[in-house]
Amino acid sequence: MYGIAEIKAMNDEQLAEAARNIREELLRATSANGGHLASNLGTVELTLALHCVFDSPKDRLVFDVGHQTYTHKLLTGRSLEHLRSENGTGGFPDPDESEHDPFVVGHSATAVSTALGLARARDIKGEHFHIVAVVGDGAFGGGMNLEAVNDLGYNKTPLIIVLNDNEMSISRNVGAISRHLVKLRTARGYAGLKRGLERFLKGIPLVGGYLFRAALSIKNLFRYILIGNTVFDNMGIKYIGSVDGHNIRELKNILRRAKEETVPVIVHVRTKKGKGSAEAEQNPAAFHGVAPSGAPKSSKQDFTSCFGSVLTELAGRDKRVCAVTAGMTGSTGLSGFAASFPERFFDVGIAEQHALGLSAGLAKGGMRPFAAIYSTFLQRGADQIFHDIMLNRLPVTLCVDRAGFVGQDGRTHQGAYDIAILRQYGITVMAPACNSQLRDMLELALTLPGPCAIRYPKGCGMDADIGHTELFRWQTVRHGADAVIIAFGALLGQAVGAAELLEERGVSACVINACFISPIDTELLRSITAPVVCVAEDNAAPGGLGEAVSAIIDASRLLCISGEKGFALHAPVSAQQKTCGLDAQGIANRIFARLRAQTTGLPAGKRTATTKIDG
Amino acid sequence: MYGIAEIKAMNDEQLAEAARNIREELLRATSANGGHLASNLGTVELTLALHCVFDSPKDRLVFDVGHQTYTHKLLTGRSLEHLRSENGTGGFPDPDESEHDPFVVGHSATAVSTALGLARARDIKGEHFHIVAVVGDGAFGGGMNLEAVNDLGYNKTPLIIVLNDNEMSISRNVGAISRHLVKLRTARGYAGLKRGLERFLKGIPLVGGYLFRAALSIKNLFRYILIGNTVFDNMGIKYIGSVDGHNIRELKNILRRAKEETVPVIVHVRTKKGKGSAEAEQNPAAFHGVAPSGAPKSSKQDFTSCFGSVLTELAGRDKRVCAVTAGMTGSTGLSGFAASFPERFFDVGIAEQHALGLSAGLAKGGMRPFAAIYSTFLQRGADQIFHDIMLNRLPVTLCVDRAGFVGQDGRTHQGAYDIAILRQYGITVMAPACNSQLRDMLELALTLPGPCAIRYPKGCGMDADIGHTELFRWQTVRHGADAVIIAFGALLGQAVGAAELLEERGVSACVINACFISPIDTELLRSITAPVVCVAEDNAAPGGLGEAVSAIIDASRLLCISGEKGFALHAPVSAQQKTCGLDAQGIANRIFARLRAQTTGLPAGKRTATTKIDG
Repeated sequence: MYGIAEIKAMNDEQLAEAARNIREELLRATSANGGHLASNLGTVELTLALHCVFDSPKDRLVFDVGHQTYTHKLLTGRSLEHLRSENGTGGFPDPDESEHDPFVVGHSATAVSTALGLARARDIKGEHFHIVAVVGDGAFGGGMNLEAVNDLGYNKTPLIIVLNDNEMSISRNVGAISRHLVKLRTARGYAGLKRGLERFLKGIPLVGGYLFRAALSIKNLFRYILIGNTVFDNMGIKYIGSVDGHNIRELKNILRRAKEETVPVIVHVRTKKGKGSAEAEQNPAAFHGVAPSGAPKSSKQDFTSCFGSVLTELAGRDKRVCAVTAGMTGSTGLSGFAASFPERFFDVGIAEQHALGLSAGLAKGGMRPFAAIYSTFLQRGADQIFHDIMLNRLPVTLCVDRAGFVGQDGRTHQGAYDIAILRQYGITVMAPACNSQLRDMLELALTLPGPCAIRYPKGCGMDADIGHTELFRWQTVRHGADAVIIAFGALLGQAVGAAELLEERGVSACVINACFISPIDTELLRSITAPVVCVAEDNAAPGGLGEAVSAIIDASRLLCISGEKGFALHAPVSAQQKTCGLDAQGIANRIFARLRAQTTGLPAGKRTATTKIDG
Repeated sequence: MYGIAEIKAMNDEQLAEAARNIREELLRATSANGGHLASNLGTVELTLALHCVFDSPKDRLVFDVGHQTYTHKLLTGRSLEHLRSENGTGGFPDPDESEHDPFVVGHSATAVSTALGLARARDIKGEHFHIVAVVGDGAFGGGMNLEAVNDLGYNKTPLIIVLNDNEMSISRNVGAISRHLVKLRTARGYAGLKRGLERFLKGIPLVGGYLFRAALSIKNLFRYILIGNTVFDNMGIKYIGSVDGHNIRELKNILRRAKEETVPVIVHVRTKKGKGSAEAEQNPAAFHGVAPSGAPKSSKQDFTSCFGSVLTELAGRDKRVCAVTAGMTGSTGLSGFAASFPERFFDVGIAEQHALGLSAGLAKGGMRPFAAIYSTFLQRGADQIFHDIMLNRLPVTLCVDRAGFVGQDGRTHQGAYDIAILRQYGITVMAPACNSQLRDMLELALTLPGPCAIRYPKGCGMDADIGHTELFRWQTVRHGADAVIIAFGALLGQAVGAAELLEERGVSACVINACFISPIDTELLRSITAPVVCVAEDNAAPGGLGEAVSAIIDASRLLCISGEKGFALHAPVSAQQKTCGLDAQGIANRIFARLRAQTTGLPAGKRTATTKIDG
């Protein structure tokens, strides 16, 4: 709708008008397709000012997380009409979409680190351009960010950090750095107060003027009196700010000042999440991510919400139960728990490593912590699962939400890599197929002497109650002799659907709910006599359930279907399933083809075309 | 040699005498068994003072990393006579050894996080005791530590952090926080200067006294003039210090002061690594870990040293080559590189996440970064490998040192979990069997368009040059028709030994060097006709090479031997291999038993006793 050159030529009034139009477009696009709303409404002016002052793509704009880049996408020629839809513009930065995006990104607290790498490469090569890392105040407390800031402040590599301070991560912000920012925000009257103090000191007879000069020479005395050193000064980074993030003139001025610096500098920008939408400003957490406005609302309770309510119930009857989250209270279903048991609820902010270390300590202290973390973000805590939890045999329950395909958020958010990590540490991994099984597993977790993980997908499970969950036992959901389909989580329903399709073709397929992914039910597996055993998982193949099963079932009769081909898509879960043949039709086709091939001796691929089941 | 009660009853002179005797014991124990020397010599007085002031195990002493706990082990009744030897006292804290150790630990930057968990559990339960986290200045910049400090300072949970500032991590310290500490150390004359300023201001006629009082009331003006707020104050944690860490009287005083606080407090203790040993004080990095004094010195170049020299050579002819390390310059073989190409060498301190983020940025900027990180510490960067490197298809080479069994450091340090993580991200994983192959692989890495990993074990490879390395091709090292042994890295030599033992028993075994762990050489695998295929790996089984191979080789003829049983041992690598049957004899026995079982139809276990090959 606007190009960068066009924006650069605008005066402040025209920019304000552009900001209004962009906000309308953001509301239209997210209403049609869903997406991150509040953060994008909050960064319209900031993004305009950045493109006015810097020359992307020569200058590099590294947005942290990248969910706030819709305005940037518009200005760099990308339509939001099919935002987050298959073949449409993705919800996160992507160099394959535009040269204005330096990195694929979706996790938080990485921008200063990767931007610093760009800056060092630039300096080694003797090139000259600016690099700007745009980081939210919530992400600023993330370990990777703080590690990078510690390096930056020491080595003084020229780099500009724009601290986008909206007083929020996804839920309300926590952490000492956030509180420090509050202090800096309130020090806005600094310049006026400085003048007042000057007058006061200069008015003191005889020595006033002298004292004043002496004081000024001792490390900007007034600034210390008012706000002390900032944490950034102490980390070796020049602090400039704060500035109103919705005032384009002020923004341009401060960014131009930052651009002239030859040392690392942090620009403190105050923005308002949801700016320009009364609803979103009122409740930014609810408008962090929004669904398309026409989307049907399910009356069924999803796994996330079921988890929250069962855990709250358990906490009521067992005083050891604690809940831990890393900045995702609402999104992991824990708002109710937080309200009911505030003294046993811990939101550590976007800090997965510490969330798990804290859980280990709580468990060692006799509590029963349940740490709720999205599968994709659990990768941040791999070492803590190994070192702090597993080696110490501590009864921490990892509640792994968004396990499997996640839909429109796409490749940075797929819950596809927790199984291999958890399996290799020998941690018990459970995967409920319905809410009643999730309840069974949460209760089971309370009885285990060591760590375990319960992984559940986005959305709802099977409608039918799957029956009583017995430790380490798989469940036969449907009987059949010609083939066996082993699945878990969101794919169990597809497996049942596949069995029904196969039945129409005269193939009787057994369906097994692999509700324990580690350890596997070897006894049941050894009893299988069917010529084809299919493992269907919306997970990476290496280290996944298929490989675990291959220790028992010969490769020659094993058919593993995994999720890789669907990972890169930003599209509905159903499209991701279909792309890699994990929908009912896809599973049925593969099994039918394999059965034919084994019977006729022809390779499966050759027969598929002629024996295809009609979709 | 001394008990806690005994120490508590001693006066300062007796404690100084005890410190001398303990140092002698430390020198004796590490000379006999090897171990961490410099850090333990540096913390003798601190440990004595901690046990004088606090009542362990009621009060909890959480040592970060835990390699500095030898004095603590002595005082809590553990002999160092067989330190780090099989069945002897381990080199790291271990609750199975003593109730005075709250956690199994070995990785850095975890103590504040886990201690905070203990503190929160204590407060929920209404218990009363003290918790002290002892953290080195090197570890303080680690992301997990900073995440925990951010939480602690916000929530004000009572907890004592002892910052053991020896100006070193393993190599010399880097990072803005370290530099900040230097400033705080030099501010020791604070009290004297304060008095001088008082006199000066009070001497000013008329207004001096008034001004002075006003100034004092404004946030401890003098302290700000001298040192500003400390970074800890800004993070919400009360700073006390600094104090001479070898003066027991001062140490006890400051710890008693900290004990009385009801807010989180950080005690800044200055210690000297290697204190009491002239050699170790002079060169603490060389005395970080020492070998037993009688240990034979190999004249062969080990993998680590070969890596360093080849990379330095490559950097000489390719200006894109950079080296990145996370606080381990010497231990990863990069000292020579750092000296030759300082502008392309980056030691980020103990900060694996940022090391990998920085590498991603460097690669995006056109460089060819080689990030050298121990296998066990690479777990800290799982998410960065996924999100910043793999998703961005950036040509970062992960140089994974200490892959496989690591010997005496034991379970916290085993290099056993990188394969599953790397495989699931689809990253090319190579494993050299000798120095010449390591060279081939480093050169190969430079030609690849995307990320790869080269993993090599502690110590030396095979003597013989393994021949030219061809991308994704395994190498047949020895021919044979009855069985195939697939191995890589340190175990290839054991596999060849096993084949020789089998030959004595009339079994001809082929040995394959699986020098590419991902992707595997499926073509070669499909051509195997032998009735038994053995995969030997000193790695965790889930997600390992054995599971990868099981996609091609039927479970019924596959024999996977993995490392789990040896992980918990602190013992020589040879003992770890033997414990899980990964020595030549163990591998030969298993194959022989399996062959017999398959021939006779008897289960393998039953036949083993009678068909055992003599060791």
